[in-house]
Amino acid sequence: MDALECLACGNAYPLDIHNPFCPVHGWPLLIPASRKKRRIKTSASTIYERYADFLPLHPFDPALSLGEGGTPLLSLTRLACELGAPHLLAKNEMMNPTGSFKDRGTVVAVQKAVELGIRRVGTISTGNMAGSTAAYAAKAGLRCLVYVKEDTSRQKIVSAAIHGASVIKVRGDYASLFRRSFEIGRTRGIYFMNSVDPFRIEGYKTAGYEIFEALGADAFNGRKPPRIFVPVSAGGHLIGLMRAFLDLREIGAIGSMPRFVGVQAAGCAPISRAFAGRAETVRRFPRPHTMAHAISNPFPPGGDLALSLLRAGGGLMTSVSEPSILRAQSLLASREGLFCDPASAVALAAARKLGPGRGPDILILTGSGLKTVEDANPVALDIREQDLGGL
Amino acid sequence: MDALECLACGNAYPLDIHNPFCPVHGWPLLIPASRKKRRIKTSASTIYERYADFLPLHPFDPALSLGEGGTPLLSLTRLACELGAPHLLAKNEMMNPTGSFKDRGTVVAVQKAVELGIRRVGTISTGNMAGSTAAYAAKAGLRCLVYVKEDTSRQKIVSAAIHGASVIKVRGDYASLFRRSFEIGRTRGIYFMNSVDPFRIEGYKTAGYEIFEALGADAFNGRKPPRIFVPVSAGGHLIGLMRAFLDLREIGAIGSMPRFVGVQAAGCAPISRAFAGRAETVRRFPRPHTMAHAISNPFPPGGDLALSLLRAGGGLMTSVSEPSILRAQSLLASREGLFCDPASAVALAAARKLGPGRGPDILILTGSGLKTVEDANPVALDIREQDLGGL
Repeated sequence: MDALECLACGNAYPLDIHNPFCPVHGWPLLIPASRKKRRIKTSASTIYERYADFLPLHPFDPALSLGEGGTPLLSLTRLACELGAPHLLAKNEMMNPTGSFKDRGTVVAVQKAVELGIRRVGTISTGNMAGSTAAYAAKAGLRCLVYVKEDTSRQKIVSAAIHGASVIKVRGDYASLFRRSFEIGRTRGIYFMNSVDPFRIEGYKTAGYEIFEALGADAFNGRKPPRIFVPVSAGGHLIGLMRAFLDLREIGAIGSMPRFVGVQAAGCAPISRAFAGRAETVRRFPRPHTMAHAISNPFPPGGDLALSLLRAGGGLMTSVSEPSILRAQSLLASREGLFCDPASAVALAAARKLGPGRGPDILILTGSGLKTVEDANPVALDIREQDLGGL
Repeated sequence: MDALECLACGNAYPLDIHNPFCPVHGWPLLIPASRKKRRIKTSASTIYERYADFLPLHPFDPALSLGEGGTPLLSLTRLACELGAPHLLAKNEMMNPTGSFKDRGTVVAVQKAVELGIRRVGTISTGNMAGSTAAYAAKAGLRCLVYVKEDTSRQKIVSAAIHGASVIKVRGDYASLFRRSFEIGRTRGIYFMNSVDPFRIEGYKTAGYEIFEALGADAFNGRKPPRIFVPVSAGGHLIGLMRAFLDLREIGAIGSMPRFVGVQAAGCAPISRAFAGRAETVRRFPRPHTMAHAISNPFPPGGDLALSLLRAGGGLMTSVSEPSILRAQSLLASREGLFCDPASAVALAAARKLGPGRGPDILILTGSGLKTVEDANPVALDIREQDLGGL
C-alpha cells in the first residue's frame, strides 16, 4: 500500500512524500491499484464509502471532510442547441467547498498527513490549491505554509490566508519553486501536497466515478463514447480522471474509455504542443501568457505521464485562444448561469473549436469565477448608475 | 393554490406578483399549505421530489435547476471544543451554485415566472440575490434587471452582470427602492422576485427539511431541542426556515419546534431592537452601519411577520458587535476551514454570545466569503513576500 509505482518503468518505490517522482524517468509516482476485487458500493451514501475500493483511505475520517464531491452534472440545453451538439453537459466542480476541484484531492492528502502523524502541510499554487489546502489543514488542525506566485490576485491570497495559513508570495521561477518546495519540506518536516501528489491524484478520481454513475454504463459501451474536456495545468487532474476510467475498465464496468480532451490556453500550452509534435517529452513553454492563470504552468510535472495516458486511451490535447476563452466564459454565464474562471472556460472553448462529437460532451468546470472577477470581459457587462428618482 | 394568505388577518388574496403584501397589515403574503396529506418522500433522489408535498411546484422542471440544495451539515468539532458546546453544526449554504442560500428561493420563483409565461425578472439586492437571480434567469432564458445599492462591491456586481443581467447601481434610499421596484415591475411586466417573495420563501424551506432529516426526528422530540442561528436581513430566509418546521410539526414529524435565534449586526438591528423592546412592529433603524452588508437592511419588509413567528415558536432575536463578527469569521475559517462572509459569521458570534445550549446548535452559513474578500480582517492574515533564493 505504501509503495508507489512509476508507469514508465513499472518499478515500485517506497513512499517518500518529499520526493514522489521516479528517480529514473522523473514521472510522478502513483499509488498502485488494490489487488482485491473492487466494486462501487452503490448502496453507500457518501462518496468515500461508495468508492472505498478505489481510494487509499483506510478508513476515511469524515471529521476531516468539508463535504466535497457529489457535484452536479448539468445538462447545458441552451448551449447544446446553439452548438448543435447532441448532448452537452457540465460537471460543476466549482461547487466544492472552496470553489474548485482541488478539494477532492486535498481531502485525501490531508487524511494521509494525519495518518502519518505529520503536523505541517504546504503547497505551491496559482491560487485554487492554496485556498483548498489551507481550508482542509484548518479543519484538521494542521499548520499550513503556502507559496504563491507574486502576481497572484488578492482574492486568492486572502482566501488562503483567512484559514490561518502562512502565505508567501515568491519572486522567481515557478518550476524551480516546485522543486525547491520539496527540499524545504524535507528539511522542515512539511508535507508539500503539490499538484501531482499521488494521494491528491487518487482523490481526483472520485469525479470520474460520479460521471460514470450519472451517465450509466451504457453510455460507455456503445458506438458513441462520451468526450470529456479537461483543463490541464500540471496534469494531475487529468491523470486522476483518466485513472478513474482505467479502474472502471479494469473491473469490467465499462467496455471502452471515454475520449479525453485535455485543453490548455494557447498562451501556455506545453503539453498540447508536445502532443501536436508527436513528442514523448514535454518541454518548457517559453514566455507563458494567458488570463487562464489557474492553468498557466509552463513546465508541468505530470506532462509526460498525461501525454502517455492520453495516447494510450485514444485521447487528445488541444489549445484555445484568449478571445475564445473570454467568449466561452461569457457563454457559460449568460446561457447556463455558470460563472466559472477562465481556466474552466477553456473546456467549452475547446468543444466549440472541435465541433460536436457523436456522443455526449462533458465539460469539467474546474473553478469558480468568484476568485477571478477582475478577468471578466468588461465589454460584455451591462452596468449603469442612476438616481432613484430617475428610474 | 394561486391565492396567498396573510398570517396577521388570515385573509386570502389573489396572487399579484407585483404586490405580494397584505393591503391591511403590510405583511408579506404567503402561500397556504396544501390541504392534502403531506409527507417527505424519503426514497426520492432530488430535493424537489423529496419535498414536493411542501413546495408550490407542479411539477419541478430540472432544466431550470443549477443543482442547488443538498448542502452539507458539518460538525464543527474544533469550535465546539473551544466553546464548550455539546454539539455545534454548520449548514453550509455557501455551497449553493452561486455561493449563497438565495439559490433555493430563486429556483422556485424562476420556475413560477416560466409557468406564468413571464419573460423578464428582476430583483433588488445587496449582492447575493443579484448574482443568484441573474444566474437562474440566464439558465431559464429570461431577461434580468438588477438594482443594487451604489456602494455594492465590484465582485458582487460583476457576479450578476456576467450572467447577462442589466445591473443598475441606484443612488437613494434602499427601502424606497424596494417599493419602487414593484411599481416598475407592474408597468414594464417584470417579475421582481425580491427578498420576501412568497415563492422565494417557500424555496428556503428546503434547508429546514434537510436539517430535520440530517438530525433525525428524535433530536426534535426530546428535552434538548436544537437551536438554529439564522442571520436576518429582510426576514424572508428566517420565515422560510421557520415555516419548514411548522410544516413538520403540523404533519406530526416533530413534537416541538427547534429554538430559532435570529441574528442581526448591532449596527443594523431593527428586528432585534423591536424584539428586545417587546414591540409588535419593526421600525426603521437609523444610520445603519455594519460590515455585514448582506444583512444590512434598515427597514425589513418581513420584520413584523418574522417577529410574530419567532415569538409564537419560542424563538428569539439577538444582535452582535462588529468586532465579534470579525472574530467569528476568522474562527470559522481558521478552525473549521469555512470561509464565509461577515453576514454568515453573525450566527457564530451569536452562539458565542449566548453560550452553549442544552442540545445541538446549528449555524446557518448563508454566503461565501469569496464575494467579500475586502472585508476580511487584515490583521489576522499572515502574508509575506520573499525571493526564491531566500526561502
